[in-house]
Amino acid sequence: MKKHICTLAVLSGLSFSALALDCDPSLLPSWKDGVSKTKITQFVSQSTDKSTKTFIPKQDRIAVFDNDGTLWSEKPYYFQLAFAFDQVKSMASSHPEWKAQEPFKSVLKNDIPGVLRGGEKALLKIVTATHSGMTVEEYQSRVEKWLKAAKDPRFSKAYTDLTYKPMREMLTYLQDNGFKTYIVSGGGVDFMRVWAPDVYNIPQEQIIGSALKYQYDYNDGNPTVTKLNEILSIDDKAVKVENIQHVIGKKPILAVGNSDGDHAMMQWATSQPNSMAMIVHHTDKDREWQYDRKSSVGHLDKAMDEANQRNNWYLIDMRKEWCTIY
Amino acid sequence: MKKHICTLAVLSGLSFSALALDCDPSLLPSWKDGVSKTKITQFVSQSTDKSTKTFIPKQDRIAVFDNDGTLWSEKPYYFQLAFAFDQVKSMASSHPEWKAQEPFKSVLKNDIPGVLRGGEKALLKIVTATHSGMTVEEYQSRVEKWLKAAKDPRFSKAYTDLTYKPMREMLTYLQDNGFKTYIVSGGGVDFMRVWAPDVYNIPQEQIIGSALKYQYDYNDGNPTVTKLNEILSIDDKAVKVENIQHVIGKKPILAVGNSDGDHAMMQWATSQPNSMAMIVHHTDKDREWQYDRKSSVGHLDKAMDEANQRNNWYLIDMRKEWCTIY
Repeated sequence: MKKHICTLAVLSGLSFSALALDCDPSLLPSWKDGVSKTKITQFVSQSTDKSTKTFIPKQDRIAVFDNDGTLWSEKPYYFQLAFAFDQVKSMASSHPEWKAQEPFKSVLKNDIPGVLRGGEKALLKIVTATHSGMTVEEYQSRVEKWLKAAKDPRFSKAYTDLTYKPMREMLTYLQDNGFKTYIVSGGGVDFMRVWAPDVYNIPQEQIIGSALKYQYDYNDGNPTVTKLNEILSIDDKAVKVENIQHVIGKKPILAVGNSDGDHAMMQWATSQPNSMAMIVHHTDKDREWQYDRKSSVGHLDKAMDEANQRNNWYLIDMRKEWCTIY
Repeated sequence: MKKHICTLAVLSGLSFSALALDCDPSLLPSWKDGVSKTKITQFVSQSTDKSTKTFIPKQDRIAVFDNDGTLWSEKPYYFQLAFAFDQVKSMASSHPEWKAQEPFKSVLKNDIPGVLRGGEKALLKIVTATHSGMTVEEYQSRVEKWLKAAKDPRFSKAYTDLTYKPMREMLTYLQDNGFKTYIVSGGGVDFMRVWAPDVYNIPQEQIIGSALKYQYDYNDGNPTVTKLNEILSIDDKAVKVENIQHVIGKKPILAVGNSDGDHAMMQWATSQPNSMAMIVHHTDKDREWQYDRKSSVGHLDKAMDEANQRNNWYLIDMRKEWCTIY
């Protein structure tokens, strides 16, 4: 018996409404049989079947995935911000001026809503201050240490346990079929490279993200690369496409995101035949979060409109289509 | 009989002094048995033999190669400049002002020494003018068309026939042994991506180079990426390391170059155990070119001094160690 009703999640006591869709444990087991799963498997078949006109040579099977809200959760705020806030606290003793200086003052008082009200400018100030002035190596060892201890406030789980199981399965399925999977995220490239290779089986060199400028120094035989307090790239919206061009140099045939920040790369990928775009739609307030047009983090509006109009763009309905979230 | 004296090059009428080194046709056949070949094969063995302490897991076998002067010739001047000069000529009718404006005026008069006397600033002006204001697609189709017609002035060969056979063999040998080979070159990334994937079996996404800024536009359903007349990155010296960090995110274990422009990346790669650096030394004025410390193009001075002092840096003596150049 290959198929079974996916009742495990119900039995485990979660209160989501399990719809009567079947789950096939042999292929993408966390995906209920529905439109998204069908489209994913169809897309892989049409791309890999040499006898069809839709066949894509292996070297051109480039798939790009956003990270925050697409491969792991992004609420109540981006996980990397949680790291930055914790860094402000642990660095505060060397920065006595922060006690009187916004946005650091609010972070130190644990007034996170106050910090968030400062908008992108305040957050950028926090991120650059906590992510610069050290070598990449030193920065990444801080991230590693933090990830081992930190817990998400809602689920009390390690942040790396809040990646979506269905999406990890999708990545593996694509990788098994010769796709080169990339992350193209607004998150920091040096931050993601610490944990994403293990969690998603995506190597460091297939991770594109926001970055501060780097500076190489030879230091008399002890070379280092330091992260400067200056922005190199904010990998969002049109810049995602520009970075894909710069780093990969090929147009992806599959782009997956969850917000208007991914709109441009979905348009870019699907401006060619035999391509596809997918949007993770956050519809599950019980098991994860529910948000789209009105959310500032993970704002999904124009891309959703376009998905509704185009025949190779699909919304993934988390609540209806995923047996398991994490 | 596995080995034979490599007399073919002599028989073919070339006048270089063939030294009595053996060539093994079964492994790196264009390399004479000598220090460089031994070091390459030893390095591959020590990196891939799981039973040794020097073993490198496959995902960390990153090898970076400069291009100009390392994988193909760079004299009398960088081949990409020959393209740029030809572009000035073919674009001149739309730029009547160039007739009176340096450095374009000298290019149009075929006064190449005059152009070169203008130094880096003049060359940059020519490169940005001829490489911008069009989509990447349009630019690359121009490069492709040019490559099919253009001939090198000394050898009357297509430029893509002036890649070094021994280096192509070395790339293949590394690739066959699980190394991920990258180009990290001062040459334009969009220029190299047109032909290098075919010639070196290095895919577009493993090519790092100099670049102009990119601009994405949606154009009402017809997305494009345009090359702007602004520098994004000049991939030379310390910037090579900074770009390796940004794009690859791992320290290479092998770096191969030919000039002081590659010095930093060789230092960076070899600042860890079980690593190696190699320098292609242009010693063959008959079959290729002869230059090092006094040359402006391919200036090799400090890196050569360091190679002479370090026990995991090796000079490749073209004249003595290569059976065949192209």
